[in-house]
Amino acid sequence: MNGPAPELEVSAWFNAPQPPTLESMRGRVVVVHAFQMLCPGCVSHGIPQAKAIRNLFSPADVAVIGLHTVFEHHAAMNDGALAAFLHEYRIGFPVAVDRQSEQGPVPRTMRRYGLQGTPSLLLFDRAGRLRHTLFGQVDDLRAGALIGQLLAEAAVGGRGDEGHGTDGCGTDGCRVPERATA
Amino acid sequence: MNGPAPELEVSAWFNAPQPPTLESMRGRVVVVHAFQMLCPGCVSHGIPQAKAIRNLFSPADVAVIGLHTVFEHHAAMNDGALAAFLHEYRIGFPVAVDRQSEQGPVPRTMRRYGLQGTPSLLLFDRAGRLRHTLFGQVDDLRAGALIGQLLAEAAVGGRGDEGHGTDGCGTDGCRVPERATA
Amino acid sequence: MNGPAPELEVSAWFNAPQPPTLESMRGRVVVVHAFQMLCPGCVSHGIPQAKAIRNLFSPADVAVIGLHTVFEHHAAMNDGALAAFLHEYRIGFPVAVDRQSEQGPVPRTMRRYGLQGTPSLLLFDRAGRLRHTLFGQVDDLRAGALIGQLLAEAAVGGRGDEGHGTDGCGTDGCRVPERATA
Amino acid sequence: MNGPAPELEVSAWFNAPQPPTLESMRGRVVVVHAFQMLCPGCVSHGIPQAKAIRNLFSPADVAVIGLHTVFEHHAAMNDGALAAFLHEYRIGFPVAVDRQSEQGPVPRTMRRYGLQGTPSLLLFDRAGRLRHTLFGQVDDLRAGALIGQLLAEAAVGGRGDEGHGTDGCGTDGCRVPERATA
Repeated sequence: MNGPAPELEVSAWFNAPQPPTLESMRGRVVVVHAFQMLCPGCVSHGIPQAKAIRNLFSPADVAVIGLHTVFEHHAAMNDGALAAFLHEYRIGFPVAVDRQSEQGPVPRTMRRYGLQGTPSLLLFDRAGRLRHTLFGQVDDLRAGALIGQLLAEAAVGGRGDEGHGTDGCGTDGCRVPERATA
Repeated sequence: MNGPAPELEVSAWFNAPQPPTLESMRGRVVVVHAFQMLCPGCVSHGIPQAKAIRNLFSPADVAVIGLHTVFEHHAAMNDGALAAFLHEYRIGFPVAVDRQSEQGPVPRTMRRYGLQGTPSLLLFDRAGRLRHTLFGQVDDLRAGALIGQLLAEAAVGGRGDEGHGTDGCGTDGCRVPERATA
Repeated sequence: MNGPAPELEVSAWFNAPQPPTLESMRGRVVVVHAFQMLCPGCVSHGIPQAKAIRNLFSPADVAVIGLHTVFEHHAAMNDGALAAFLHEYRIGFPVAVDRQSEQGPVPRTMRRYGLQGTPSLLLFDRAGRLRHTLFGQVDDLRAGALIGQLLAEAAVGGRGDEGHGTDGCGTDGCRVPERATA
Repeated sequence: MNGPAPELEVSAWFNAPQPPTLESMRGRVVVVHAFQMLCPGCVSHGIPQAKAIRNLFSPADVAVIGLHTVFEHHAAMNDGALAAFLHEYRIGFPVAVDRQSEQGPVPRTMRRYGLQGTPSLLLFDRAGRLRHTLFGQVDDLRAGALIGQLLAEAAVGGRGDEGHGTDGCGTDGCRVPERATA
């Protein structure tokens, strides 16, 4: 069993007067929705699902965080544009901006966690361990089942990692091109 | 903590060469979808959800059973009509017919379990205890979370019971009229 | 240009104190939704669309009629079962029962009009001519466009006939087997 | 009966090697989808509908044009951001950018046509007259019926104007605030 996951590398926060850390959320299940504001699958599926997760569970049990992992169209998806997006889409949960890297278009947390693209759903257990990393549109039944299982655990558990692949930006989501992560 | 729930009272089985009992499914989480074939909310929501539950989880972990709890239009929803319905809607999981009662229109299992109408989702834990009874359309995220929590348990656990109410047969489901259960 | 279509052959009417004829509806566009109560594509798509057509257009311009064209599971879809179905699904427009034939399972109007299965959407112009016969799920944009074009006509017009094919009872609808119409 | 509508006032075109004018499209029904790239109702409903209209009808009969009518968050919805949006959402039909005004945040065509917000659907007849201006999410059946009626006309016709109102940016769309159009 691995230890707690490394912290997110964040260049800005929205909707977070007191920016949370993974460590500060220890004891709760943490759901991170990694998205890009111009990613169709994030807008149509991932963001509504993140809102629904936030509405269903008690904040004492489950924390929901957005992570803006911009790996393409950086100028179009700057922080000012994100602020407008969060306002228009009525997103009220805390959203972190993944810190850009000097090494390429893929931002730091995205690279560190090896995310394949957006949307990605990251599920951390009560002990702060990254247990599931799911790329693409995850159906609600499955997301609920995984969160439910983590909820039922005390602060010990197993480890899982799942995902599936497509090329480019489809109805499912936007995949990081091979060259970008190399 | 209560003990195992009483068995279903069944007058006929479909899709079940060897009819299961709750006892025979001990060790697995059991999901019972109580429905009527002419209930709009069952057809549009409950049955597709039951199919999705069956597809998502391993049969070794989660058993899915349909329960035809006819409490109105008994002639129209006889066993021959149910057979045609199961064929047309491609329902492949075992379906039990709740045994009619001499005491009124509400069948025996439905009365015994105090179901409010259709659709109802009944969740039994690995120890055979009825843990959740949910009336109406339950969203997938919530159904998944409840099943996930039961899955994470060993054969001991708590007890819950939830539901909500409307009158008559609405978009949500068909409620048993007061007079019928009295 | 053909003349007015032959009348429906009807064994019973529901929701029609004064059963209409095609002739009595002359001057209006007439939309006939041919369905079976146990046809999944009819229940999920065709019937909601027929309700929406009825709600959108003025009854002075567009008449909406259901036609129960039972070609399989005749016992399960008898008139008593249909009455229960119409009640549960809150169907308020007139529904005709297509008269059964001695020659086979396909009822008379269905055979006369050469319908391929259910759901089918039949569109008659203001002059009573059958202008479009569409099998399967017709999307709302297309249904609207065809009705809109007929609405814009005076009581003269062209003729069209469209459809597409699949085998058996799929998500799209239930096709009449070859043997049944031979 | 009014004459042809004034031309769109456009500062840039996308997907249009030879930018069309209303005059150049005379003889066809012209559908203009006015949107903002950060308007939720445009993204979820209006743009898919515009794509569906383009796919359903022959280009010889119906022309589909997007009009980016930015009246808020101007910096976030600049032309570079729009280019990224059109790419990610796979929008292939011509899109015009409504020319900004010195008189306020509402752009020129939007002001000239008196649009209430986004999404708006503008339908021009074959003679170039603006016949319907619909604010908010228009259902497909209605959009189809209106286009179908215009299609059935020769180059003469009536005039209509419809719409409904809400405040701000809701599930339906984004309304121009009173102050902005004054």
